[in-house]
Amino acid sequence: MKAKITVTPKKAVLDPQGKAVQNALEQMGYKGLRGVHVGKYLEIEVEGDRETVKAQLEEACRKLLSNPVIEDFHLVLE
Amino acid sequence: MKAKITVTPKKAVLDPQGKAVQNALEQMGYKGLRGVHVGKYLEIEVEGDRETVKAQLEEACRKLLSNPVIEDFHLVLE
Repeated sequence: MKAKITVTPKKAVLDPQGKAVQNALEQMGYKGLRGVHVGKYLEIEVEGDRETVKAQLEEACRKLLSNPVIEDFHLVLE
Repeated sequence: MKAKITVTPKKAVLDPQGKAVQNALEQMGYKGLRGVHVGKYLEIEVEGDRETVKAQLEEACRKLLSNPVIEDFHLVLE
């Protein structure tokens, strides 16, 4: 099955990459932007029991794939 | 409204970051991994007419946010 994981900076954390993208878009003439946040996206193809896989991936997200001090993650199993 | 954009390397393109994550997970003891792909994730808060916004963001994805030679993007407007 396929796991889709997004890792985004917490709202309270400065997001300079998002700000840079927002500035670039505005300089290209795009209007109406209220905020841009940039994070990571991971697709993991994995086999095994669904519940076990979910528990393992959540642990992996906390330990390796995100920094829980400054980032949130969201995991969806398909 | 909120736009969610994922940018992933095309299947035919080498993904060394994904391979590195897969190796790290395997060394941490996770089993059953068949593949890991790492990409970018963007959340954009934007105001305006829905169709206009969608067209503008698709253009921005092609011109600024992804490299169409080696990456695919997927845009969802909420």
